[in-house]
Amino acid sequence: MVNICELLEIEYPIIQGAMAWIADASLASAVSNAGGLGIIASGNAEAEWVRSEIRKTKEMTRKPFGVNVMLLNPHAEAIMDVICEEGVPVVTTGAGNPGKYIPKLKSLGIKVIPVVASVALAVRVERVGADAVIAEGQEGGGHIGDATTMALVPQVVDAVKIPVIAAGGIADGRGIAAAIMLGARGVQVGTRFLVAKECTISQNYKDMILKAKDTDTVATGRSTGHPVRVLKNKLARDIIAMEKRNADLSEIEKIGTGALRAAVKDGDVVNGSVMSGQIAGLVCKEQTAKEMIEEMFEEAKAIYENRAIVCGARGTIHGNG
Amino acid sequence: MVNICELLEIEYPIIQGAMAWIADASLASAVSNAGGLGIIASGNAEAEWVRSEIRKTKEMTRKPFGVNVMLLNPHAEAIMDVICEEGVPVVTTGAGNPGKYIPKLKSLGIKVIPVVASVALAVRVERVGADAVIAEGQEGGGHIGDATTMALVPQVVDAVKIPVIAAGGIADGRGIAAAIMLGARGVQVGTRFLVAKECTISQNYKDMILKAKDTDTVATGRSTGHPVRVLKNKLARDIIAMEKRNADLSEIEKIGTGALRAAVKDGDVVNGSVMSGQIAGLVCKEQTAKEMIEEMFEEAKAIYENRAIVCGARGTIHGNG
Repeated sequence: MVNICELLEIEYPIIQGAMAWIADASLASAVSNAGGLGIIASGNAEAEWVRSEIRKTKEMTRKPFGVNVMLLNPHAEAIMDVICEEGVPVVTTGAGNPGKYIPKLKSLGIKVIPVVASVALAVRVERVGADAVIAEGQEGGGHIGDATTMALVPQVVDAVKIPVIAAGGIADGRGIAAAIMLGARGVQVGTRFLVAKECTISQNYKDMILKAKDTDTVATGRSTGHPVRVLKNKLARDIIAMEKRNADLSEIEKIGTGALRAAVKDGDVVNGSVMSGQIAGLVCKEQTAKEMIEEMFEEAKAIYENRAIVCGARGTIHGNG
Repeated sequence: MVNICELLEIEYPIIQGAMAWIADASLASAVSNAGGLGIIASGNAEAEWVRSEIRKTKEMTRKPFGVNVMLLNPHAEAIMDVICEEGVPVVTTGAGNPGKYIPKLKSLGIKVIPVVASVALAVRVERVGADAVIAEGQEGGGHIGDATTMALVPQVVDAVKIPVIAAGGIADGRGIAAAIMLGARGVQVGTRFLVAKECTISQNYKDMILKAKDTDTVATGRSTGHPVRVLKNKLARDIIAMEKRNADLSEIEKIGTGALRAAVKDGDVVNGSVMSGQIAGLVCKEQTAKEMIEEMFEEAKAIYENRAIVCGARGTIHGNG
């Protein structure tokens, strides 16, 4: 079975989540320099913005990094061309099946790792040549599916031969160790990196993540078929009220337009979209990406060693950590 | 830290989920005889039904077992009296804070373990004397909260000193090992026991669980504030359609009334309510409760031992199992 660190030539089996407007050269290079795989999130950006972030990232790190391509982006094809021209080592994809791009990417030795929210999509992307899959549970932030990490990861692991990376609800060493037990070979972490010192989002956004409790996120847009997990604020309440009265999709999209940018860049965490995973309640300190990654893996190691599964007369399991 | 097996005098740290209409003396005694903690689910039943199931269970096992009390049941107080009169060793509770019953239960040496879906409720029940809490993620079947197991369990573990039992999305040894890594001291399993040979539900219900895929459940009633996770069928689609057109709660309750009983007892899995967790996709064989429990813990032990977290130069973690 392929080892994620060998596959991606990284030191820790951790990929930084692709967060549109957030995951730029600054965060991606910091995560890669720390030994994980930094990701530039292209979101709905144009190809030339992606090229410039790729070039900035190359200046800031000599380690491997990746670009996430949201397949519904009208510029997706042009972005894939830029990725090929710039020789980016890894591509992760969102919102669908990247099959049509895989032959060219693989011919250039670029690794392709789609994010999937179901067994069916995992099987389809394996069939078209994906190198691994990121199985993301609905506890994750931003655009989500329906299956949770605990339910999705083992079912995907049983369905594909390629390595599975767990995402959704992972922000510390306990989550990493749990993901490994579920059969994942690595993890993707997003929410915790929102408060990384190298993450360039507004301090208001970071403060809201740092203060969040376990019940502070909500999935808006479930009625539209495109749920998005955010921290509860005025915008979230407004969207939910509109959904409840079956407002036009156009009307809902209207107040959503530019809302993520407003929270990220302008610090408007009232009318802006503060995307976050449910695990924000565990995220309580600002650190460098390097401090976060080293702390998470030291924790995972200690938990695995200390919270021993003691096998008694009949294989009884209990924690002692 | 208290060990669940010592606390409950059981051999495996596993509690059978409380499933109304389903978890009766037959299933509860089978799970207890196998070394777990069987639970009689009182749901909305009357006190004398509960008394008769308790007495049947006592005839079928000499091992400890429990009764789950749904606190919104109008008969809850009378059921608590029966539990005290019959000297049931363990009570689990749903839908709230059992604080007012705890002094009497504890004075009789009865252990009290509330099911919680948030950190706030976990803290409140610890304060009133709960012996442990079951932190249940929304991937579980039946009545659910919003936080998922992966996100909820570590946040509850950080917030309370009493032992935390993980529930939601657990149906095999991988789920058990993952729950332990998250800080849980034991697990509660519901969906897998639906297909236990000692589970008396209709074969139609069991067959639907055995055939289910990862995406086959849906949470109905989110708009009512009381979501219920079920397998998708005509009833589920009808309820979702009613919610979408903001039908009266009374209208939704009307088609829901008797629907669980219809699926469980009459095998009507079209107009009946087929409650199930998201992990049903992993449940693919009918076994005795003893076979299930022994297999799950053997798996958990093997996974923990084989899928070793290898600590390299920089604590890198990867699976090798």
